[in-house]
Amino acid sequence: MSKLKRNERVGALIKILCDNPNKIYTLNYFTNLFDSAKSTISEDLVIVKKLMKDLKLGRVETIAGASGGVRYVPYMNLQSTRETLSKICKILKDNSRIIPGSFLYMSDIIYNPIYVRKMGKIFATKFMDKKIDYVITVETKGIPIALMTANYLNIPLVIVRNDNKVTEGSTVSMNYVSGSTGKIRTMYVSKRAIRKGSNVLIIDDFMKGGGTAKGLSDLMKEFNATVIGIGVMISTKEPKEKLIDKYLPLMIFERGGNREEINIYPNEGLFV
Amino acid sequence: MSKLKRNERVGALIKILCDNPNKIYTLNYFTNLFDSAKSTISEDLVIVKKLMKDLKLGRVETIAGASGGVRYVPYMNLQSTRETLSKICKILKDNSRIIPGSFLYMSDIIYNPIYVRKMGKIFATKFMDKKIDYVITVETKGIPIALMTANYLNIPLVIVRNDNKVTEGSTVSMNYVSGSTGKIRTMYVSKRAIRKGSNVLIIDDFMKGGGTAKGLSDLMKEFNATVIGIGVMISTKEPKEKLIDKYLPLMIFERGGNREEINIYPNEGLFV
Repeated sequence: MSKLKRNERVGALIKILCDNPNKIYTLNYFTNLFDSAKSTISEDLVIVKKLMKDLKLGRVETIAGASGGVRYVPYMNLQSTRETLSKICKILKDNSRIIPGSFLYMSDIIYNPIYVRKMGKIFATKFMDKKIDYVITVETKGIPIALMTANYLNIPLVIVRNDNKVTEGSTVSMNYVSGSTGKIRTMYVSKRAIRKGSNVLIIDDFMKGGGTAKGLSDLMKEFNATVIGIGVMISTKEPKEKLIDKYLPLMIFERGGNREEINIYPNEGLFV
Repeated sequence: MSKLKRNERVGALIKILCDNPNKIYTLNYFTNLFDSAKSTISEDLVIVKKLMKDLKLGRVETIAGASGGVRYVPYMNLQSTRETLSKICKILKDNSRIIPGSFLYMSDIIYNPIYVRKMGKIFATKFMDKKIDYVITVETKGIPIALMTANYLNIPLVIVRNDNKVTEGSTVSMNYVSGSTGKIRTMYVSKRAIRKGSNVLIIDDFMKGGGTAKGLSDLMKEFNATVIGIGVMISTKEPKEKLIDKYLPLMIFERGGNREEINIYPNEGLFV
């Protein structure tokens, strides 16, 4: 490969950094890759940082010290956050989505990468500055959003199961009351999945009473893990009192007097 | 925002295109965004294309015609593919992963975005040129890899369930024989999830006898859908005869005479 020009190096730097969110690259890595002096790469990075900031595409930051280097921090600004959530709300509010039992059909949205990568980026933006070791979710519908959140935070995802699977080895279990059915259920996670004393972020698709999030929080205690945050795609307005105190919904779901009347809107708490 | 310089536009173009794999952007979109002439953007794109090619970072291509424009096509070259899979094999081969019942503990790898985004990119590279409408998987362990594949292909993911869930509305079901347990099970998917006559790509984490993939293929017939390909992260060497004919494994799992002896290696078929 012939030596790159500045505009080519800037492009390559952005591609490499953004493909690996939150991964720290040393300056040496780039001086070797581009066969360029440290001062040259430093100048390139000044351009990259300014550009990302000006175009609101995220943040590229330098970390000082022995284990230092440069990394891309994914970021979604408030305007894009509002636009994204308003669009999803508009899609979900469609009356043709109400299915027997007065449930809302959402699988096409919560499994679609176009929407889940944006919602994952919103959660990552909100929890970026906390020191989080794992994203935790319980199967099945929250997995895509949780995976995308973990992807932007560049940390592992742990999927808690609703059955005790042979492929998980020795497991830890926890009973909980499912908000949607009111039944007592059991959740299981491999003992190997979470290091003792970790910090975790719980992500799920839907919260009504908060029973599942409460169960996950209780399960985390078995690992001496600290729940740094709980993020849900949609929480219901009623009941107002949930089984857990602090959680961050992206959208709020509200039912009218007639059960067929529904409303879904972005959580204004995100924008203050 | 002041007018951008060439190196800034090149960086921004790469970021925007790569954040949205396979999405077609018109030239007008960029002339408006950067307040620049078409000829200027065209010259920028020549630099972007050459750079992506030279650094083997993927392909940026122009699509002619009324619905034309420019898009980023994710791509993983054979060398990176081999390095990625060799690394995952090395991790999985560790004897401490063998759990009671002679199963292999893999959840930390198949849920970790660092690995699944690379495996998703390999599948996307292999199936990029086919016209695929949906990626299909069955819960739970294949979901992360399937989602990342769908992400790079920029198409929706459909998750088939092992229970008939009230949130799916009216469903279509199919019986199948699970290869790992030998039991007859039933899988369900919402009638709304797949348009009749679509082309689908099936992605799963593990294949032994091929019963699950066969069940998914049979289920697709109910939607008059064509199975364009079947990708699995790992397939077992034995039995050689699977219930389906054509499938693409990333890695092969082989057991020694002693059930505690295992071997996992990249599928050489990927590199020919």
